[in-house]
Amino acid sequence: MDDGADLVSMLHRDRSDLLSNVVGGTEETTTGVIRLNAMAADNALKYPIIAVNEAETKHFFDNRYGTGQSTLDGITRATNILWAGRRVVVGGYGWCGRGVASRARGMGAHVIVTEVNAVRALEAVMDGFTVMTGLEAAKVGEVFITVTGGLHTISGDHMAVMSDGAIIANSGHFNVEIDIPALEAMAVSHREVKPYVEEYTTTDGRRLYLLGEGRLINLAAAEGHPSAVMDMSFANQALSVEYLVKNHGNMDPGVYVVPVDTDQEVGRLKLASMGIAIDSLTANQQRYQESWEEGT
Amino acid sequence: MDDGADLVSMLHRDRSDLLSNVVGGTEETTTGVIRLNAMAADNALKYPIIAVNEAETKHFFDNRYGTGQSTLDGITRATNILWAGRRVVVGGYGWCGRGVASRARGMGAHVIVTEVNAVRALEAVMDGFTVMTGLEAAKVGEVFITVTGGLHTISGDHMAVMSDGAIIANSGHFNVEIDIPALEAMAVSHREVKPYVEEYTTTDGRRLYLLGEGRLINLAAAEGHPSAVMDMSFANQALSVEYLVKNHGNMDPGVYVVPVDTDQEVGRLKLASMGIAIDSLTANQQRYQESWEEGT
Amino acid sequence: MDDGADLVSMLHRDRSDLLSNVVGGTEETTTGVIRLNAMAADNALKYPIIAVNEAETKHFFDNRYGTGQSTLDGITRATNILWAGRRVVVGGYGWCGRGVASRARGMGAHVIVTEVNAVRALEAVMDGFTVMTGLEAAKVGEVFITVTGGLHTISGDHMAVMSDGAIIANSGHFNVEIDIPALEAMAVSHREVKPYVEEYTTTDGRRLYLLGEGRLINLAAAEGHPSAVMDMSFANQALSVEYLVKNHGNMDPGVYVVPVDTDQEVGRLKLASMGIAIDSLTANQQRYQESWEEGT
Amino acid sequence: MDDGADLVSMLHRDRSDLLSNVVGGTEETTTGVIRLNAMAADNALKYPIIAVNEAETKHFFDNRYGTGQSTLDGITRATNILWAGRRVVVGGYGWCGRGVASRARGMGAHVIVTEVNAVRALEAVMDGFTVMTGLEAAKVGEVFITVTGGLHTISGDHMAVMSDGAIIANSGHFNVEIDIPALEAMAVSHREVKPYVEEYTTTDGRRLYLLGEGRLINLAAAEGHPSAVMDMSFANQALSVEYLVKNHGNMDPGVYVVPVDTDQEVGRLKLASMGIAIDSLTANQQRYQESWEEGT
Repeated sequence: MDDGADLVSMLHRDRSDLLSNVVGGTEETTTGVIRLNAMAADNALKYPIIAVNEAETKHFFDNRYGTGQSTLDGITRATNILWAGRRVVVGGYGWCGRGVASRARGMGAHVIVTEVNAVRALEAVMDGFTVMTGLEAAKVGEVFITVTGGLHTISGDHMAVMSDGAIIANSGHFNVEIDIPALEAMAVSHREVKPYVEEYTTTDGRRLYLLGEGRLINLAAAEGHPSAVMDMSFANQALSVEYLVKNHGNMDPGVYVVPVDTDQEVGRLKLASMGIAIDSLTANQQRYQESWEEGT
Repeated sequence: MDDGADLVSMLHRDRSDLLSNVVGGTEETTTGVIRLNAMAADNALKYPIIAVNEAETKHFFDNRYGTGQSTLDGITRATNILWAGRRVVVGGYGWCGRGVASRARGMGAHVIVTEVNAVRALEAVMDGFTVMTGLEAAKVGEVFITVTGGLHTISGDHMAVMSDGAIIANSGHFNVEIDIPALEAMAVSHREVKPYVEEYTTTDGRRLYLLGEGRLINLAAAEGHPSAVMDMSFANQALSVEYLVKNHGNMDPGVYVVPVDTDQEVGRLKLASMGIAIDSLTANQQRYQESWEEGT
Repeated sequence: MDDGADLVSMLHRDRSDLLSNVVGGTEETTTGVIRLNAMAADNALKYPIIAVNEAETKHFFDNRYGTGQSTLDGITRATNILWAGRRVVVGGYGWCGRGVASRARGMGAHVIVTEVNAVRALEAVMDGFTVMTGLEAAKVGEVFITVTGGLHTISGDHMAVMSDGAIIANSGHFNVEIDIPALEAMAVSHREVKPYVEEYTTTDGRRLYLLGEGRLINLAAAEGHPSAVMDMSFANQALSVEYLVKNHGNMDPGVYVVPVDTDQEVGRLKLASMGIAIDSLTANQQRYQESWEEGT
Repeated sequence: MDDGADLVSMLHRDRSDLLSNVVGGTEETTTGVIRLNAMAADNALKYPIIAVNEAETKHFFDNRYGTGQSTLDGITRATNILWAGRRVVVGGYGWCGRGVASRARGMGAHVIVTEVNAVRALEAVMDGFTVMTGLEAAKVGEVFITVTGGLHTISGDHMAVMSDGAIIANSGHFNVEIDIPALEAMAVSHREVKPYVEEYTTTDGRRLYLLGEGRLINLAAAEGHPSAVMDMSFANQALSVEYLVKNHGNMDPGVYVVPVDTDQEVGRLKLASMGIAIDSLTANQQRYQESWEEGT
């Protein structure tokens, strides 16, 4: 994910005066789509939006494999910690969260997941991750990564019980996922120990390390997502813009999904670019799949 | 998945005379839902059906972790092969397919995935699996497992190029996923070498091993899914039946999803039974999630 | 591992009267070699023994991939538990232990390792497993598997704090790894709930399930190791016997390793049987590896 | 591994005039130890050397988890490639090689291993990696990483068949693992496309990317190993130096291993620093382990 899309969201909200000739827009991020849906529910949207994030060739890949890799990359560049054997708490098991959890495990970390959704929490358990409440996780974690898109995933209550040396980073959304004012309130001093690493010393003598001012760590301390996964996101953007130009006359203000054909086309192009061939259904297989009159 | 649900599908189709007092039905399997949707499209459904398979607490778990484990279990009991280092071809990367692929890799196998859907194929690649066409996979695979729910995932063309000693099993659907008549046509003889293992000797002297007559191998040669994952499926069944009894008066014939509240309730109960506690959104977090007017 | 080799060890010890014409022996298991080394240290060995277990093509494979797979197989057949999400305690991180831990994780389990060796404990941590003392593990585990080759890896103290429903199995050695007399002493009753599963009800009302009488669970409830890994062990046995026949005249009583050439030959034959080709060092590369006068 | 140790090796070789008062030395790297053993075999060693690399608390951790993580880190920083789905060829399955292979897989890569040792090649296969000859791997790989410590692991023959866009890095030893003169000979031009990335265009129009001049990529483009794994290596260094100072009077020139007590002590200290407690053998368990007269 990136702040860029949130900037678009701000633009939609604050500068509608500039937008009188706009035929529509596209939205790249999970949290942007959440907000646009909220705007649509409030009848605050002035034109159609295509929710590019909802394309399978976008959020299955960019959010999972892109955020997964680049988040670890950002934290590694900022801190050069060893991941193997380290207790890493991932706040949120959405697409970004499962990417981060999977890649952290792939580096040998012991991953703890926190969630508010029972189904996602169960998936995390069955995928082999430890699940507990944020407060319990705060007591045992060594590195904390927020990817919920929500407010105060790491709260003052959490930071009050973290161990000396805990590292805190955000890879989900704005800098509100970590309650930084609460951290500042409990600190007697703070200083930059190296670029992107701010050490807060608490009244009880613990040192907590906030990375990249709580902003997206993959953009703050690394280079963001590799181009090999952004290509699919941008292909969806380009094809969605083309679609808007051709079809906006028939589209009311609202949030639209990327057409399925566009999504599959992006997938096919990507596979072809990797030199990978797959099968197609034969006519018989297609017919069987659509029938209900055959079978023992 | 299991044939039981397909029997329900047959019942819907063939014995509607028995069903005059029926208030509705529920459906347990992916393929059953595909067929019921086909019936609905043909206006052939006589009463409402709740597609239990579509509940997240059903197909995310039963189809993935249940089928994954029990499929390997069935093949192990039938053959006692070593999975480590073996080339295993998984036909289909739906929920069952990703379960089988994940568990086979977890046992040390080298997993090849075949697909007809470009997005799923890409996911398989990014998840670390090799993706190729069925025909290429047939040439290099040692164990073949079909989990597509479709027709002739393993065709005569595939079996014509398989290596001597190849093992073929189905864990998706009816015995039509493997083209058994084609196998019989290319065989000069066949014999049972041990229970659930039928050896076909081809005209060119290769031996191909069909497991469990091409029927669901986890049911044929093992004990099906563990109760610890079926509990969620059956909880959805029971709650869906209750829902039908209470609400069928307001439901037209058609295929319905499990109510979201039911789904989350099953998830919460399951977590509680495992002694796992999770967080809830605070009022502030809930409000933030629904707003679009805050943020930098 | 198997009890067969321990029978050989018993034979060495108890029936030396039968062995007057023996030219030597071979030993298949880790624990057998430990005992034979103890005998050698006591000058109790009457003839040369080749420690087949110590061959790399034996213990790297048989003990790790064979025991790993077959142990899970035995427990699955006895209980049909779901491994995904389950807390599994592995006692011992030797070759067998790492096999069991790796395969349990591969099935989605949350694996806890207990060890007495600091280096092995650290390896387990860095490999991503949780490490704690046996007593702490006893409080949180759901399935316990002993693979230490030692005495009372699961003691009465451990069983006193296990949760209701805990499953206990051994895959290492004799039935002494679990302190069964202690279990019997704390039980008010016991009964077989299904083959290989004995339920002990404790005075405080907990039910503990002992599998296969505490004997090797992969042999008790499954079929032991797949032939595809035993082939290497038996090739070492056969070649070691040949070596003894040819060379015993020059061998004093004692424990000998498998000759390195034999070990590499077994490896080469196995790769060839799998259709896998590897490189050889060129003459230049060989010379470079043995030199110390080149380099920047 | 690091070039620093190789510098020590150079010093041993080239500046023995400076070393008249030396009581001994220590060696940090696999390749350094290989060379020192070669020197010892040639009677060229003038004083005792403790092979710190051979300590279990060194090479099990530093070489595996340190090199594994930092190698990927170096390549990511140099190129920002997406690892998921990428075909990565690892030359050598020693301790460094298995670290690199394991971490690359952990990031979603498809890992191919090349080896000259049959047992290691088999381990790689059973661990789930594809094994093939270097020449076959060269045709299908996208990223190549050498960790053999040997000469020309990537030769001109390999580079002649690599695909356009192939990335080549070394993380094992000197810059001789890649035959850079052969690469230069087949190139019509080369240029630095970004720091640490040199693009060579071949006569047939392919572009091959050599990273960090073929020197250790984790040092060239990243920060080397995290301190959390080097601590054990340096603890072994310090304790080995202490040992030499105390004992060199009784030590002939030669290569010595780190005393087992030192090794276990380092392990215990590291576990304690991580807050992890493990068990000790009871007296009864110790006695059982050393006996051969008990057992069924």
